[in-house]
Amino acid sequence: MPGCGAVVGGLGEAGVLRVLERRFATVPAAGDWPEGTVGPGDDAAVVAAPDGRFVITTDAMAQDRDFRLRWPAEASRRGARADFAAGHATGWKAAAQNLSDVNAMGATPTGILLALTMPGRTPVAWVDGLAAGIAGAVRHLGARDCRVVGGDLGSDDRITLAITATGDLGGRPPVRRTLPRGVPADRPVDLVLCGHAGWSAAGLAVLDTPRAELLERLGAGGTGSSAAPAPGPGVHRLAALAAGRQWRPRPVLGSGRVAARAGALAMMDVSDGVLKDAGRLAAANGRRVELDPEWIRAEAAVLEPLARALGADAGDWVAAGGEDYGLLAVLPAGTPPPAGFRRIGRLLLGSPGAPDGVTGAPAGGGGWDHF
Amino acid sequence: MPGCGAVVGGLGEAGVLRVLERRFATVPAAGDWPEGTVGPGDDAAVVAAPDGRFVITTDAMAQDRDFRLRWPAEASRRGARADFAAGHATGWKAAAQNLSDVNAMGATPTGILLALTMPGRTPVAWVDGLAAGIAGAVRHLGARDCRVVGGDLGSDDRITLAITATGDLGGRPPVRRTLPRGVPADRPVDLVLCGHAGWSAAGLAVLDTPRAELLERLGAGGTGSSAAPAPGPGVHRLAALAAGRQWRPRPVLGSGRVAARAGALAMMDVSDGVLKDAGRLAAANGRRVELDPEWIRAEAAVLEPLARALGADAGDWVAAGGEDYGLLAVLPAGTPPPAGFRRIGRLLLGSPGAPDGVTGAPAGGGGWDHF
Repeated sequence: MPGCGAVVGGLGEAGVLRVLERRFATVPAAGDWPEGTVGPGDDAAVVAAPDGRFVITTDAMAQDRDFRLRWPAEASRRGARADFAAGHATGWKAAAQNLSDVNAMGATPTGILLALTMPGRTPVAWVDGLAAGIAGAVRHLGARDCRVVGGDLGSDDRITLAITATGDLGGRPPVRRTLPRGVPADRPVDLVLCGHAGWSAAGLAVLDTPRAELLERLGAGGTGSSAAPAPGPGVHRLAALAAGRQWRPRPVLGSGRVAARAGALAMMDVSDGVLKDAGRLAAANGRRVELDPEWIRAEAAVLEPLARALGADAGDWVAAGGEDYGLLAVLPAGTPPPAGFRRIGRLLLGSPGAPDGVTGAPAGGGGWDHF
Repeated sequence: MPGCGAVVGGLGEAGVLRVLERRFATVPAAGDWPEGTVGPGDDAAVVAAPDGRFVITTDAMAQDRDFRLRWPAEASRRGARADFAAGHATGWKAAAQNLSDVNAMGATPTGILLALTMPGRTPVAWVDGLAAGIAGAVRHLGARDCRVVGGDLGSDDRITLAITATGDLGGRPPVRRTLPRGVPADRPVDLVLCGHAGWSAAGLAVLDTPRAELLERLGAGGTGSSAAPAPGPGVHRLAALAAGRQWRPRPVLGSGRVAARAGALAMMDVSDGVLKDAGRLAAANGRRVELDPEWIRAEAAVLEPLARALGADAGDWVAAGGEDYGLLAVLPAGTPPPAGFRRIGRLLLGSPGAPDGVTGAPAGGGGWDHF
């Protein structure tokens, strides 16, 4: 392995590929390439599609927009270990958000492709971390049948990566954002969610706070100068958990299949925040969302001590915070939520009243828009 | 449509999507989404894979590395038409190189995904041109069954795009870079090529020459000060043709199927130059390449007047120039080349002697490496 401080410019393309391949060989399905399939290294890969169709999605991430090489809270860390950790978080998140999109169609992930452009000065440890993060997400999120099947390397002044993921529907119809045509326009429907909301946004707030200020706010170096009640010892653990969810979001793969079997009429994953994405789901069906204030309160209560310490609003995190990759599903009203899901509101008839078709949500941010 | 000088920051994400969708609706297959498939707008797309497998490839392109917003020879052009033309060339090339990879496995293109990150100041005309270029390549290169099935938009300080293409093998085995296991190590094999070589490199030289200097070199504003023989009138046409090949490379889709039927043992498309890619093909099989000097001379002869005017070596263009996206195929020695292919050399036993396993090639550049 290249030494500490090595950069990709010193390895050459073949050397970088070796670093990537070593990590990608650790995903569970990598040891078994079925007859007739082709992995990385050729003009293109060949992936099995037993269903006679495949699900496919792609996401691009740009340095300093969608990920960072360093976080303020981590500014004191330097060297290969910090580079590896930063790359790992980026790779994990890129893989997780694509696997989440595959899951949101009711499919099982089968393949990942990585298109990566980066400067020659990029630390090898960062690239190694990126690959380990991708492989780690595939492994730990339980994408047992998913292989890293291909990719592309290019040079650029800054790092950009685009991940494409594919999936298999196993003979079931895909569950879309729009309700099937047969559903009457006035049929009452519930909105259920698998996964938590607001944790990744809370983690972002933790990671965006400089380390010294963070420790003071969390009470470690606190001198009692703040007028707010001193946060309890649990707030440190909460901050670490939230940061972990921002670094390594954990979409529940398989939840799409579960919801589909339970009769989900429509599904969508939450990448830009419950407020915004539920609003999109409603708008796609000519409806509006009514979020259950009780759900927001209950979800926010857990994050409340951390929000108080950081001077933030936990309800805003829950309603507007993105990157938790929960799964929204629409069920006929009154259907008991399948295992892992909770009812968070309903879709009502009528055109969107509030922005993005949401009512019942707290005032505040409306999630993420690129332009 | 947005007015002249509009930028994507003024349109918002939904507005940019509308610009893209309008162009993507013009590809031949876009009017017909088979039952059970899903196009853009959901968490993921669903694409038919009648073969029970699919071919998939991805390529990333970064501004000022893999494409440019302006070329020196075009520096006098400004405004929406120039932006559209620059975007068109970028979109066409991005699509063409991915369709070429699908073709090189012996498959027929079925889908394209576009992941695009760009600044808010990007001209709408550039994005419109990009989409028109992608759709134009799909249409003009004859990818009749190929739809634009999905994508992702993000913001960044500069433009990066990653295109993913998928294909169907129609029940045939994929043709890989490596010879099938059953082929004896000492079996003599020929190397054949579909398409021309060197034209895109010649076009790059044309586009990289400032307009005034270019006109003088091509003889329009020439005062006879040059000692070289005056280039004939044909050299202008040659320059325009070459520039067209750099802007809009034309891989022959279907050539992969043709070669596979003719018994091709291995295939690979030429993206980084014949010298380099034939060397890779040879090295992947523990062989070395002997290029036919007669083929290089004949191929270079056509470009010779342009090379003389620009002070370049036509033989270098042919041997080392990339981005023509010809298709290299390996056939049992003596097999008549299938329609559209010419014999350009052979693969010989033994480890690579020259760099990249090539002998018989002129001295000079060795094609493109990213790091």
